Amino acid sequence: MAEFFNVLPPAEALARWLEAVTHHTASVETDLRAGMAIGGVLAEEVLSPEDLPAFRRATVDGYAVRAADTYGAGEALPAYLRVVGEVRMGEQPAITVGPGQAALIHTGAMIPDGADAVVMVEHTSLIAVDEIEVLRRVAPGENVLQVGEDVRRGERVLSAGARLRPPEIGALLALGLGTAARPIRLRARPRVAIFSTGDEVIPPEDTPAPGQVRDVNSFTISALAAEAGAIAEPWGIIPDDAAALETALRAALAPPAAADLAVITAGSSVSARDMTAAVINRLAAELGGPGVLVHGVAIKPGKPTILAVVDGRPVLGLPGNPVSAIVAFWLFGLPAIGHVLGGSPPSRPRLRATLTANVPSVAGREDYIPVVLHENDDTIRADPIFGKSNLIFTLVRADGLARIPLDATGLRAGDAVDVYPF
Amino acid sequence: MAEFFNVLPPAEALARWLEAVTHHTASVETDLRAGMAIGGVLAEEVLSPEDLPAFRRATVDGYAVRAADTYGAGEALPAYLRVVGEVRMGEQPAITVGPGQAALIHTGAMIPDGADAVVMVEHTSLIAVDEIEVLRRVAPGENVLQVGEDVRRGERVLSAGARLRPPEIGALLALGLGTAARPIRLRARPRVAIFSTGDEVIPPEDTPAPGQVRDVNSFTISALAAEAGAIAEPWGIIPDDAAALETALRAALAPPAAADLAVITAGSSVSARDMTAAVINRLAAELGGPGVLVHGVAIKPGKPTILAVVDGRPVLGLPGNPVSAIVAFWLFGLPAIGHVLGGSPPSRPRLRATLTANVPSVAGREDYIPVVLHENDDTIRADPIFGKSNLIFTLVRADGLARIPLDATGLRAGDAVDVYPF
Repeated sequence: MAEFFNVLPPAEALARWLEAVTHHTASVETDLRAGMAIGGVLAEEVLSPEDLPAFRRATVDGYAVRAADTYGAGEALPAYLRVVGEVRMGEQPAITVGPGQAALIHTGAMIPDGADAVVMVEHTSLIAVDEIEVLRRVAPGENVLQVGEDVRRGERVLSAGARLRPPEIGALLALGLGTAARPIRLRARPRVAIFSTGDEVIPPEDTPAPGQVRDVNSFTISALAAEAGAIAEPWGIIPDDAAALETALRAALAPPAAADLAVITAGSSVSARDMTAAVINRLAAELGGPGVLVHGVAIKPGKPTILAVVDGRPVLGLPGNPVSAIVAFWLFGLPAIGHVLGGSPPSRPRLRATLTANVPSVAGREDYIPVVLHENDDTIRADPIFGKSNLIFTLVRADGLARIPLDATGLRAGDAVDVYPF
Repeated sequence: MAEFFNVLPPAEALARWLEAVTHHTASVETDLRAGMAIGGVLAEEVLSPEDLPAFRRATVDGYAVRAADTYGAGEALPAYLRVVGEVRMGEQPAITVGPGQAALIHTGAMIPDGADAVVMVEHTSLIAVDEIEVLRRVAPGENVLQVGEDVRRGERVLSAGARLRPPEIGALLALGLGTAARPIRLRARPRVAIFSTGDEVIPPEDTPAPGQVRDVNSFTISALAAEAGAIAEPWGIIPDDAAALETALRAALAPPAAADLAVITAGSSVSARDMTAAVINRLAAELGGPGVLVHGVAIKPGKPTILAVVDGRPVLGLPGNPVSAIVAFWLFGLPAIGHVLGGSPPSRPRLRATLTANVPSVAGREDYIPVVLHENDDTIRADPIFGKSNLIFTLVRADGLARIPLDATGLRAGDAVDVYPF
């Protein structure tokens, strides 16, 4: 029953694991208007097919003028210009602005030929039905957006692997990219097969008999995977039985299901976890390897994590305890999702806070401590929640997890600490 | 064409607006297993229907014992106990542990009657087929999770308005709540009607003629709303025509559509924004008010924002410029979504960074400056991106927005600054 843990530091464990993951999800043509593209990852670099803006635009409401006509103009000595018309929004101006002339123009409208600047309406006054006085001079190009000033035709605007945030979605659509006519290739969202194992585990809708507990991990891991842009596919509860686990895991990883990533929350005992590792290695021999790479990581909670690769795809064995499973999936599952997407991992928001109490730890182990945050204008204080760390309601009371670094034997009240909000 | 801006500081504008919003979304029974509940908001408080755990559980692999039998035990003087059996996972133990006895037990299994502690397997050795020596004493309760230690029956576990993160989903399901048998009431996700106005705006799949630009705002606002847990309902492009806007906005806000929130990205010019405000006020007179409350906010970009309430529902007029629209929706639209959900606004991750260049500003105005972040272990540096702030590709190049406070006339290189990553 005793077991050798090949316990690696978490950063080294993650690097060693992802190095062996060769699988990436397919690239698929995507219509960005459908609203499902947020958080998606580009499968190809994007060059701009056109100049943006495609025409000179006014950036203020006012009058399109020839800048030279305003030289020397001021409150004391206004320039007088004749208004030759109004530029209509969304149309190519029919008018041309000649010397001594001006055209009424609105923000975003196209600058008429002849004009090279816009005088803000606040710096003019209308002195007759077709005449204005200009009370401040403008330089050539002032209040005008030039052709290609936002992006030039042929310029690389996004690299393969870039993650689509709201600005990227807007920028691509502004260029006409990501529509049915000109689709964009994104990586398919990874499908994550999730297994909950353990003879004691029952579905959450059932009433537990003494000794039984409801499945929680299938759903917390599904929620985390969905937040990271993956598609969670819970495969249900598998008893602590090697043959049953092998059959289920084979079905998930082999075609036609061929999940991009598999997650097994192992039974709680060491023997159940050993069984998980053995099953993964048998499947790696059959479907392609290299199998289990890391068995045990120097983190708390989450030490008995298994990092494996089957057929180039990440397979993650998580501890059965719900808190450990959440922490270990967050540390390893989220970067793995980013990796099979061919992009950088989803950024993990991090705060710098000040600890309000001493937190003991052990050198050579990275601890994640639930904390409650108190913010004011200048500082963020992190109150550690003490007590048994493996209770799910401890996480419910917490705002985030504080990281006690690998080489620290603990941190003291007043020390700065990195906190990762949920 | 000149216009009076009732320019309020952003915090005051937001508070004044949301105070007048009386509408909340309906509460709906929700099955948490379906995976769509992440980010949802509880419509009711939740009391625990049972103790968790419901039975005493082992927290380690080892032997269930009577602690008193191990008093004085140590490496030099082990205690000898007879092994009377093994507790099977998921079952009520058939065995009872009497004085001088022990039962093999696995992590998570039910403590048998008679036993009150678990000795870790590492602190025992098996000296015969049914006998162990115990090399370290245990206290009563050691390595045992007591009944109700995570949460007690009847205890309030979550308040109305609580936001469901992965731990909350796990905790509720652990209690059997949030299944078809015992559904949980969540607030319905707000439906956000989104209008893009402007005679110059065309759908992104069309090719613009000179003077025309593609609609971007419908999709960036949809993406931001979806990220905040709302359902985006783009209503398309409305020309700069009061009657057309009034007809469309009435259809969205009145039954049967009855959107929970409406967002109009106004035409770019001042006159178009004035028209938007007038239309909103006419609809408020017809459907219920109080209409436009704030016209102009002391922010850059985003100054010409309109905050209004029609029939108790938030109506938000955004500047037409895509960057201004994103910033203003992020500052006002996201809290409004939180408000109609009856919860606290979605938390806005905030970093403290060090500015690497001087940034000018104007006292009495809150500026949001796109920045590139550089992180190392101890500090985060924020490089401001200078140039025209209203270009969408400036946001694409940025990692987040740095806030220059209302009362500052700028910040200097080396100053601390709050940065909100996208």
